Amino acid sequence: MMTEQKRQMHLGAFLQDVGHHIGAWRHPDAPRNAGMNLEHFKLLARRAEDAKFDMIFLGDQMTFQYEEDEHIGRTTRTVNFEPLTLLSALAMLTRRIGLVATASTSYNEPFNVARKFASLDHISGGRAGWNIVTSWTLGEALNFNRDEVMDHGLRYQRAQEFVDVVQGLWDSWEDDALLNDKKTGLFFDPDKLHVLDHQGRFFKVRGPLNISRAIQGQPVLVQAGSSSDGQDLAARKAEVIFTAQRSLAEAQGFYRSVKEQMQAYGRQPHQLKIMPGVFPIVGESREHAGEKFEQLQELVDPEIGWPVLARHLGGFDLSGYPIDGPVPEFPLSQGNQSRQRLLADFARREKLTIRQLYWHVTGTRGHWAIFGTASDIADQLEERFTGGGADGFNIMAPWLPGGLLEFIHQVVPELRRRGLFRTEYSGSTLREHLGLSAPPNRYTQPAAGAAL
Amino acid sequence: MMTEQKRQMHLGAFLQDVGHHIGAWRHPDAPRNAGMNLEHFKLLARRAEDAKFDMIFLGDQMTFQYEEDEHIGRTTRTVNFEPLTLLSALAMLTRRIGLVATASTSYNEPFNVARKFASLDHISGGRAGWNIVTSWTLGEALNFNRDEVMDHGLRYQRAQEFVDVVQGLWDSWEDDALLNDKKTGLFFDPDKLHVLDHQGRFFKVRGPLNISRAIQGQPVLVQAGSSSDGQDLAARKAEVIFTAQRSLAEAQGFYRSVKEQMQAYGRQPHQLKIMPGVFPIVGESREHAGEKFEQLQELVDPEIGWPVLARHLGGFDLSGYPIDGPVPEFPLSQGNQSRQRLLADFARREKLTIRQLYWHVTGTRGHWAIFGTASDIADQLEERFTGGGADGFNIMAPWLPGGLLEFIHQVVPELRRRGLFRTEYSGSTLREHLGLSAPPNRYTQPAAGAAL
Repeated sequence: MMTEQKRQMHLGAFLQDVGHHIGAWRHPDAPRNAGMNLEHFKLLARRAEDAKFDMIFLGDQMTFQYEEDEHIGRTTRTVNFEPLTLLSALAMLTRRIGLVATASTSYNEPFNVARKFASLDHISGGRAGWNIVTSWTLGEALNFNRDEVMDHGLRYQRAQEFVDVVQGLWDSWEDDALLNDKKTGLFFDPDKLHVLDHQGRFFKVRGPLNISRAIQGQPVLVQAGSSSDGQDLAARKAEVIFTAQRSLAEAQGFYRSVKEQMQAYGRQPHQLKIMPGVFPIVGESREHAGEKFEQLQELVDPEIGWPVLARHLGGFDLSGYPIDGPVPEFPLSQGNQSRQRLLADFARREKLTIRQLYWHVTGTRGHWAIFGTASDIADQLEERFTGGGADGFNIMAPWLPGGLLEFIHQVVPELRRRGLFRTEYSGSTLREHLGLSAPPNRYTQPAAGAAL
Repeated sequence: MMTEQKRQMHLGAFLQDVGHHIGAWRHPDAPRNAGMNLEHFKLLARRAEDAKFDMIFLGDQMTFQYEEDEHIGRTTRTVNFEPLTLLSALAMLTRRIGLVATASTSYNEPFNVARKFASLDHISGGRAGWNIVTSWTLGEALNFNRDEVMDHGLRYQRAQEFVDVVQGLWDSWEDDALLNDKKTGLFFDPDKLHVLDHQGRFFKVRGPLNISRAIQGQPVLVQAGSSSDGQDLAARKAEVIFTAQRSLAEAQGFYRSVKEQMQAYGRQPHQLKIMPGVFPIVGESREHAGEKFEQLQELVDPEIGWPVLARHLGGFDLSGYPIDGPVPEFPLSQGNQSRQRLLADFARREKLTIRQLYWHVTGTRGHWAIFGTASDIADQLEERFTGGGADGFNIMAPWLPGGLLEFIHQVVPELRRRGLFRTEYSGSTLREHLGLSAPPNRYTQPAAGAAL
């Protein structure tokens, strides 16, 4: 007999072209044009699957950070596959791993988003997840008929309604609606088709969706914003949160707060998995890991470092201030407020100089960085996982493929020795990997006599 | 030495779930839920590739023909994969065949469309094509915040600007813009990045696109409307036309007219391939083919046949008229005017009764049907191809997979015996199959001294 299953962590592989460090493309191992290199993504997806990760995760912006600037040619995050086309291709090259893509609620229509993720879910045999973002960059606004980014609050109001519509469309067909009865000529049961007829503030969408019910019931909803609006959306809807708390105390506070907020919406804590981003560098020793990070930092031109920092601060430029002086107060912009607030709090609490903040942001994008041996990294993940700060982690390898492969070869076995991570998939859908049950179709009546 | 290559026809396989006949899902061989059956599409794509077809072709509507109706459950074209996700998956399961998907200019944004097709082109190694449609059904309007379909002329004005923006975005990066120079830190050449800055009547799009230049330079542009607005768009932009002329004279007139209209836009006739739809039934004799068609017709319920006819006539319902009387004049609606006009002309010219029109539309969707032996079918295709009526054909198999496989096994060898169709691919991209050269990037300067 098996003993009761120990709680295990969930792992995602956040695949960002050549890695999350902005100097990574100059790493000796970096493949050319990684963002549009299918062989590169094929390798990463297969290795993550071999390691039994819950999912691969693709970010997305519908622009690159284009600014007319003499140093623009040094910017690497310029061209990338469109995430839904890429994941549909990768679905054919993998069998079990979850496939999560980002799609914006600000520059798409809910019918199209509902349809694409439901289609991916069918294509992949139940492995699709949608990372909901509201898109905060000016570059995206300018590509979609706007002169400026929509107000932060308005973006989230639109997002809430957008998600409601998408979920409504996903319930258009009950599980057993299609009959295929060649003899009688009845293709589907009309009583099991439901027309949404949504009329709201932002959208008017009749439905029904022209895709049958997803293999997972509904694709998994992932959410990444940590502002109060973002937390509210997460508490109401999200099944996975990708977040960016650095300290244990911060992570515990966030974890507790969001899981409490869920109650107001009648949801149970286990229905949401909180998976902070982790930026790991594995070394033979802590010093060795630190050296590996410094080698990456040396690949970053200061000319591109300063604008990167300014973007993380909502456009506020620190390059004119004394570099070894304190980080001044700066106003929040309409952009990614939760990230701006996290950085401001972090700088104040740790009494960072501008130079330190510069290194932190250009080096780790403001995410939780762990540099150390495999055992050090496992210790920290274990502490946060068992200490009420996380249900798992989204691994943001500094460079790819090497940074992810080192994590897989060195840290994953250590997590397994501690019983903290699976050795084999027990299910075949993303929901099964995450321990999330399929949401019932809102229209399906409980079977008569089911309570007997 | 090879002699000069005889002109050969192009063939597309228009894959419509279980086939183009509305009764096809009840055919004994029809797979269940064909529209969302990945194995079914995999088989079809591979067989079409084995037969060296130029492309597979997917139609699309962002709705199904939902009408509250007691017979709604008899409607089969309800659920289908989303085309871009499906083609991205099929790109991994095939190597050479072109992949053409329909996307609407009325319910998408040009940045998203430019991006998805460029991404598919990279994923597939240069096999993507975009079939431009303006979407004429009420069901689509109701799924996208509208109460009615946009006016026909306005839809095409929007489409013209939409295509201009998409092509502008596709030229964002010159072919050799990406440098990947790890040593100097220059990722791309800023002189080879171009910002569109489009500001028009319908769209304001800055760009640049965040996808590097397509393998084909640009994905192939396909267009399907035959109204005067549609022909104008085709003459200006299209590289393939999918059309629906039935008689040779009609086809010749259309062919000549569109190729003449191209001159006004400075284009050469060979830059556009006209590929009418063909609805073939292969039999051991003509009688046998006719019997096969009648067997399909017997699978159609009259309850769903009449609404199908009404939709093809822009909503005009003939079910109240004497069934063996003449087809009355009917007004054109804002829907698919070219189809309405073709049917009206056809009915008048052929002096059809309502019963005959009903059979024609419910049976063949108003397309050119050929029922006969393989040799009969090859004769008719040859006549139209050599007689100035077509550059190739989009094969609309009445039922799938059988109808397409019969065409492949019986008609394709006959076309090869006549030297009218390739025995092997000579290129690897869709453009190469079609004999279309890659469009130069508008920004690329001819090399200095190139004229020497």
